[in-house]
Amino acid sequence: MKEISGGVCAPKGFMAGGVRAGIKASSPKKDLALIYSQERCNAAALFTTNRVKAACVQVTQEHIAAGKIRAIIANSGNANACTGQAGMDAAHRMAQLAADALSISPAETAVASTGVIGVPLPVSVIENSIGALKDSLRSDEQGHVDALEAIMTTDTRKKEIAVGVTIGGKTARIGAMAKGSGMIHPNMATMLCFLTTDAAVTSEALDSALRRAAGRSFNRLTIDGDTSTNDMALIMANGEAGNQPLTVESGDYNIFCEALDYVCTALARSMARDGEGATKLVTVTVLGASCEKDAETMAKSICSSSLVKAALFGSDANWGRILCAIGYSGVEFAPEKIDVSFISRAGEIKVCKDGGPVPFSEEKARLILLEDEVEILVRLQEGSGEASVFGCDLTYDYVKINGDYRS
Amino acid sequence: MKEISGGVCAPKGFMAGGVRAGIKASSPKKDLALIYSQERCNAAALFTTNRVKAACVQVTQEHIAAGKIRAIIANSGNANACTGQAGMDAAHRMAQLAADALSISPAETAVASTGVIGVPLPVSVIENSIGALKDSLRSDEQGHVDALEAIMTTDTRKKEIAVGVTIGGKTARIGAMAKGSGMIHPNMATMLCFLTTDAAVTSEALDSALRRAAGRSFNRLTIDGDTSTNDMALIMANGEAGNQPLTVESGDYNIFCEALDYVCTALARSMARDGEGATKLVTVTVLGASCEKDAETMAKSICSSSLVKAALFGSDANWGRILCAIGYSGVEFAPEKIDVSFISRAGEIKVCKDGGPVPFSEEKARLILLEDEVEILVRLQEGSGEASVFGCDLTYDYVKINGDYRS
Repeated sequence: MKEISGGVCAPKGFMAGGVRAGIKASSPKKDLALIYSQERCNAAALFTTNRVKAACVQVTQEHIAAGKIRAIIANSGNANACTGQAGMDAAHRMAQLAADALSISPAETAVASTGVIGVPLPVSVIENSIGALKDSLRSDEQGHVDALEAIMTTDTRKKEIAVGVTIGGKTARIGAMAKGSGMIHPNMATMLCFLTTDAAVTSEALDSALRRAAGRSFNRLTIDGDTSTNDMALIMANGEAGNQPLTVESGDYNIFCEALDYVCTALARSMARDGEGATKLVTVTVLGASCEKDAETMAKSICSSSLVKAALFGSDANWGRILCAIGYSGVEFAPEKIDVSFISRAGEIKVCKDGGPVPFSEEKARLILLEDEVEILVRLQEGSGEASVFGCDLTYDYVKINGDYRS
Repeated sequence: MKEISGGVCAPKGFMAGGVRAGIKASSPKKDLALIYSQERCNAAALFTTNRVKAACVQVTQEHIAAGKIRAIIANSGNANACTGQAGMDAAHRMAQLAADALSISPAETAVASTGVIGVPLPVSVIENSIGALKDSLRSDEQGHVDALEAIMTTDTRKKEIAVGVTIGGKTARIGAMAKGSGMIHPNMATMLCFLTTDAAVTSEALDSALRRAAGRSFNRLTIDGDTSTNDMALIMANGEAGNQPLTVESGDYNIFCEALDYVCTALARSMARDGEGATKLVTVTVLGASCEKDAETMAKSICSSSLVKAALFGSDANWGRILCAIGYSGVEFAPEKIDVSFISRAGEIKVCKDGGPVPFSEEKARLILLEDEVEILVRLQEGSGEASVFGCDLTYDYVKINGDYRS
């Protein structure tokens, strides 16, 4: 497996584009994206677990369940959530507009939105821009970058990746773009992730691979403890690589799964690093828990703690807050058998042994925590369960972004 | 029932005091408190649900279980948590020192600590100050204020209250002091609350009344989603009011319970208002839920949302975030049957009706949200369950306090 360029356009047969439709009337930024496959694709998707689901989530759920997909139309600047029947009508209309422009069926079109909740989606501006959006489709560098820019909101970094792998003797590719920098917890909130592949994969195998990859990446990501109304991770497989279609029993299925894990984990880490206001990418790893689920629960509790996150912002080796967060995670364990270390490029330091203080250099700890990638390593003695969770620090800018900006 | 002065010294037969022992070597503030009853008291207490419990919590649990209590010794500046056997020895030593000074039994002495986790408690400085601490005991204004000041950490306001009630024809009093301004969620975290009463109440009735009152006050308080290792709410009843001892069957038991509810709710509101860095006291009320538990769960989800809290700091009527937080609360409900209003001294405004947008004046909403006490009112149509939860906004200063201060 190797990383390649091209994002969602890296796999054969995919085009992408993006334009400024004017959904956020006052913004000069692109806000409408399109991804298109020349061939009909098997597709799988995961959606927000929020009881309040945006209209686009409901429409895309229907379309994925109904069968093959050929296009994704996505807007930023408006979530089309809490918008009632008018919102459902608008989401269906978006699918229809894209389908008409591409001469495909609306049921083959997925719809995604992100932005402010509770404001009617101005579907007429999408209608006015649908021709330009279709014309923006490219299979080259420009296409995937335009599409990616059009789904960004408070994101400060472009999050995309592509990899090439050999499956059944054929070269296949997976490409992906994502947006998301706040409200990400615990299940890929305000996250949009669109994945493309030219591998031939059955719908069932695609669904299984996506669930596995998301479970180890997007679902282990926490920015601020909020879970949005609009999350969606969607993968389209058009089979143009020409391999024998992968099923869950195929010998090379695991190669595909590992490539998808790699892609999703890289995007999850990008999102954590780009957490709203974040200055640090924080990885919390728990080793020696009773089981993987316990390790994940404990790691999420640490990584979600406002006090731990504020201490990391201050580069303060305040390990007591870490023990405290493990203590209220709901998992049973022996507090007197916990070790805690901090790790970064600047080194590694143990700050807690057997649940109690251990002498350490505050100066060295501070140097380690001043880095922009920090890992908290917690070792228990309960069993062999382990998990890593991704997050970020809590900063003045998080408050500023979310106090000032109606997103 | 009426409010009276005197805090924990308002009930007959109680004295209190506080001194600077030097537990935080660099701070000029008081850090050691004592509350003492001339008579032996029935007592009840609630403790942190964190699996990691400070040594003082474990010692006080034993002493409460063993029988009557006559004194509480409490320090700030060091939590004596995650400190191993040395910490347990230190907590026992604190009880012994207070008991010796007061000529009572160590088992009659409760111990409480608050402050940084994982640093050995310098028990020798407590030993050096125990004489001065005993000498500081007063039944007047100075005593309860000294004691209160000695348990404050990042608190910016003094939190105390006392009320007088008539029970069985006798005048009885309840007094209380509390500290806590961060890590308060969902079960009275980093909160110390010491309550005194001269009513005669059986231990069983006292325990029942305290659980009821805490369930409606301290356990409906959320500052930052963290639950500390050291929480304690402890009530001592010395019977000096001379009433027939109250049992849960007594006719006047409910009068006592209501007075205790009032005291605890007032302190919970004070703590929410004094949440670390807070500029606003936020009350979230949910009406029309299926049951009280669902109402409480939804209200806590809203009141804990970093996005809702940041929007309140910015006085932004961002009701979509409120629906979003209800949506991920885990409670089942019909999203299309939710109304949301904001209420403050400046008026009331409905911002969401039937789960969707309703036209409203942004200017009026902003004026309402600029007040320092704001209520979010959510109405569902599921049933008659209702609950109010107390919290605060998320501000730059929260980050500053917790990024800079090792607490």
